[in-house]
Amino acid sequence: MGEKLEQLKQHLYRHYDLHMAGAVLDWDQEVNMPPGGAAARAEQLATLSALAHNIFTSAETGRLLEAAEVEVAGLGYGSDAASHARVLRREYDKQTKIPTELIAEFSRARSRGFAAWRQAREEDNYPLFQPHLQKLLDINRQIADILGYEEHPYDALLDFYEPQVKTSEVAKLFTELKAGLVPLLQAIVERGQPVDEGFLQMEYPVERQWELTEVILREMGYDFNRGRQDQAPHPFTTNFSSSDVRVTTRLNPHRPQAAIFGSIHEGGHALYELGIPAKFDRTVLAGGATLGLHESQSRMWENMMGRSRAFWHYYLPIMRAFFPQPLLGVSEEQFYRAINKVQPDFIRVEADEVTYNLHIFARFELEQALVAGELQVKDVPAAWNAKYEEYLGITPPNDAQGCLQDIHWAHGTIGYFPTYTLGTLISAQLFNRAKAEIPGLEEGFAEGSFLPLLEWMRAHVHVHGRKFTAAELLERELGEKISAQPFLDYVTAKYTEIYEL
Amino acid sequence: MGEKLEQLKQHLYRHYDLHMAGAVLDWDQEVNMPPGGAAARAEQLATLSALAHNIFTSAETGRLLEAAEVEVAGLGYGSDAASHARVLRREYDKQTKIPTELIAEFSRARSRGFAAWRQAREEDNYPLFQPHLQKLLDINRQIADILGYEEHPYDALLDFYEPQVKTSEVAKLFTELKAGLVPLLQAIVERGQPVDEGFLQMEYPVERQWELTEVILREMGYDFNRGRQDQAPHPFTTNFSSSDVRVTTRLNPHRPQAAIFGSIHEGGHALYELGIPAKFDRTVLAGGATLGLHESQSRMWENMMGRSRAFWHYYLPIMRAFFPQPLLGVSEEQFYRAINKVQPDFIRVEADEVTYNLHIFARFELEQALVAGELQVKDVPAAWNAKYEEYLGITPPNDAQGCLQDIHWAHGTIGYFPTYTLGTLISAQLFNRAKAEIPGLEEGFAEGSFLPLLEWMRAHVHVHGRKFTAAELLERELGEKISAQPFLDYVTAKYTEIYEL
Repeated sequence: MGEKLEQLKQHLYRHYDLHMAGAVLDWDQEVNMPPGGAAARAEQLATLSALAHNIFTSAETGRLLEAAEVEVAGLGYGSDAASHARVLRREYDKQTKIPTELIAEFSRARSRGFAAWRQAREEDNYPLFQPHLQKLLDINRQIADILGYEEHPYDALLDFYEPQVKTSEVAKLFTELKAGLVPLLQAIVERGQPVDEGFLQMEYPVERQWELTEVILREMGYDFNRGRQDQAPHPFTTNFSSSDVRVTTRLNPHRPQAAIFGSIHEGGHALYELGIPAKFDRTVLAGGATLGLHESQSRMWENMMGRSRAFWHYYLPIMRAFFPQPLLGVSEEQFYRAINKVQPDFIRVEADEVTYNLHIFARFELEQALVAGELQVKDVPAAWNAKYEEYLGITPPNDAQGCLQDIHWAHGTIGYFPTYTLGTLISAQLFNRAKAEIPGLEEGFAEGSFLPLLEWMRAHVHVHGRKFTAAELLERELGEKISAQPFLDYVTAKYTEIYEL
Repeated sequence: MGEKLEQLKQHLYRHYDLHMAGAVLDWDQEVNMPPGGAAARAEQLATLSALAHNIFTSAETGRLLEAAEVEVAGLGYGSDAASHARVLRREYDKQTKIPTELIAEFSRARSRGFAAWRQAREEDNYPLFQPHLQKLLDINRQIADILGYEEHPYDALLDFYEPQVKTSEVAKLFTELKAGLVPLLQAIVERGQPVDEGFLQMEYPVERQWELTEVILREMGYDFNRGRQDQAPHPFTTNFSSSDVRVTTRLNPHRPQAAIFGSIHEGGHALYELGIPAKFDRTVLAGGATLGLHESQSRMWENMMGRSRAFWHYYLPIMRAFFPQPLLGVSEEQFYRAINKVQPDFIRVEADEVTYNLHIFARFELEQALVAGELQVKDVPAAWNAKYEEYLGITPPNDAQGCLQDIHWAHGTIGYFPTYTLGTLISAQLFNRAKAEIPGLEEGFAEGSFLPLLEWMRAHVHVHGRKFTAAELLERELGEKISAQPFLDYVTAKYTEIYEL
């Protein structure tokens, strides 16, 4: 690495450290903080954000970046040095447009929004959250205006989570996906084949659930010397370096699959961050490439591995040892069908693989309407319920199970949801290739062997850190574009077999 | 409050927020962080310290402080505004002398020292910690030289924890104290009266211990909406605002008094921070005045309330309900004597009230010798053991129970220990006055009434925040100087009665 780029990196260490300190304060806020801590924490996070933004957007960063760009000019597009300068330029040009005061205001609004959302969800009280959502939406719209866009203001927001992807591209993929999923769901519902899942509603002591999730995380390759698991109202993964990557899950004694698939999902995110090469530490290249790629990992581990027959061939005996009573006499086939039961329901994070993306379509359309000013914040609950009626044929009984279920808006993240579906599509593309290149991959799951999949992902995805966009990475590693067909093929085959369509 | 002072306060909000963010990262480091997080955390904390120091010692702070000093010139010494300017001036003049690079280096050395100490103590491996202690001592000596001192370099360090108190004053108080304590201990040892404490070594399930400590904390007035309790290898209290004050304790199934008195002690610190008026939030006046005053609160709750007959008249039945088996047939008198058993032992935090200060004398003298260059770091274990032989007549069986037992040096805090004894002395002075002014104070303990004591401390100690030094506060509230006699009277009376001397 050249001298100028090295200077630039060192100049930005403080920015990175402040960002990570903010992540610790965020994690604490969601996992540990007593209610009394909220007001001061909002100010602390705002201060950290503003100082980090000041350093990142300083003229000094600009000067050092220009010098580094000259230095890396002859290097290949995919080299670490050229990628470093390119990714920094992209973020620098974007961040310098946003005033530091707005960053601080946004941070404060996020902390307050989170506290209000938590209470509003507990009390099923949307009006309590409404002014906070209004504020957070206003700031998002302001940021979209500042950054500019060609087609839709949503493009400017989506770009934070999935760089260089346009709303219209997402919409096109979603239309293809819808065309396959809606008839599949219809066929399943019409088939009307009952699934016995009564045994999943019995008593599963939460301490045992906790132990089981830790066993699974360990066997997936999650290293508890470089991470830990805690409880949070909305599961998430965060990292404070590539050697301190933490997951959270939630426990429900009558729904063990919430903790199990929650932990596997977050474990997938964590394995990605733990797999980022240490050479990127404390730089802009440290971390997963895009949220779509992040979700490709979490959803692949959760669904393609975690909801497979092979996985449960290995794990059902272990799970039965943890919970003898409710699983007495439950066969592998019964269990497999129960955890893959397709049923339109209210909660996104607990949705099956067929309906999951319908939850995302609803959010994607609502967010676009909010950002475009076509939907008013006060009308969100009604609009939400109408979308659920349209896509899933059901109406949430209340807002807690409706528009208040997700944490994202409370965090001020608008434009994030589509990355779940992009990730779902990418997961099928990556998993297909891994399967083709690793003989006996799924047979391995049946014997408790999960590391070959991790090794493949490390070599083809994690190794790049944040060097590439999702499209660039898929082009380099698979020679493919993001496409709906592989996932549609996967999901159609899986559920045609389960439901004997 | 005047306009200039208001500008100064607002200018320093970021300093305060960074300081509090660092406290969150420190707390996380001790309570939650996986081992892999240590290296990055050291850099994050160094960055926060350096940025905070930069803001605090900036020329802008100096300019605003000068303007504020003009503005408050006519106000009374004890007014909030004059105190604000005075305390800031004291800290500004001190901090501006210390280069920011040294602050960052110190922070990094502390994080590394903490990680090394934790391992060294676990493995009873002093050589592992030795280079870190050397580094931390060198930085402390460098800081003492930079700040300057009249009599002893230790003065410069002590001043961080107990402003405006000289080593020679402490030594004088300690000499008086020694003159009373050593003969008292000798009399107790010679009396040779056996104390039955076998029942305290039986099995006390740790989950139950946890519940009991939370009951006690609540009844003392600790508000779990503004705090929480966790486990840590060395109990401590920290705060991230006056509404988020957290305590830690440790659990040993065969030593319930470790958790109980640990929690009460830390609870005493926490009640102090929770009692600081909100008007001081986010300023230099937020927080306990000095460490001596802090320890006066923690040690008063722990000993004068927590180890009193009255307290256990109320709590023994509750404790028996939590632990029926080991406490079967144990009388109030037996229990009272057992928890007040005087016996020279190795661990400071578990020492009785008679021997406790002997542990401090040893540390105070060792620290002075280290700072003066009269004791080499490699010779600390031998010197430690010699001091224990001198003061307590015992030799620690290993360094884990000897010079590695305390966290302070690992945190780079040299000069802190004497504040425990100063606090002990002050606790007796404050408690005497509270007793004189609150009719039936101790009878109240016997009925579970602890809030009158808290209210008195709030009105006479907590209310002032960091406005005064310990000497100033005692002069204002009690019309007294710090003195050894009240504590000597208290401890002599208590143990003469228990041991029938």
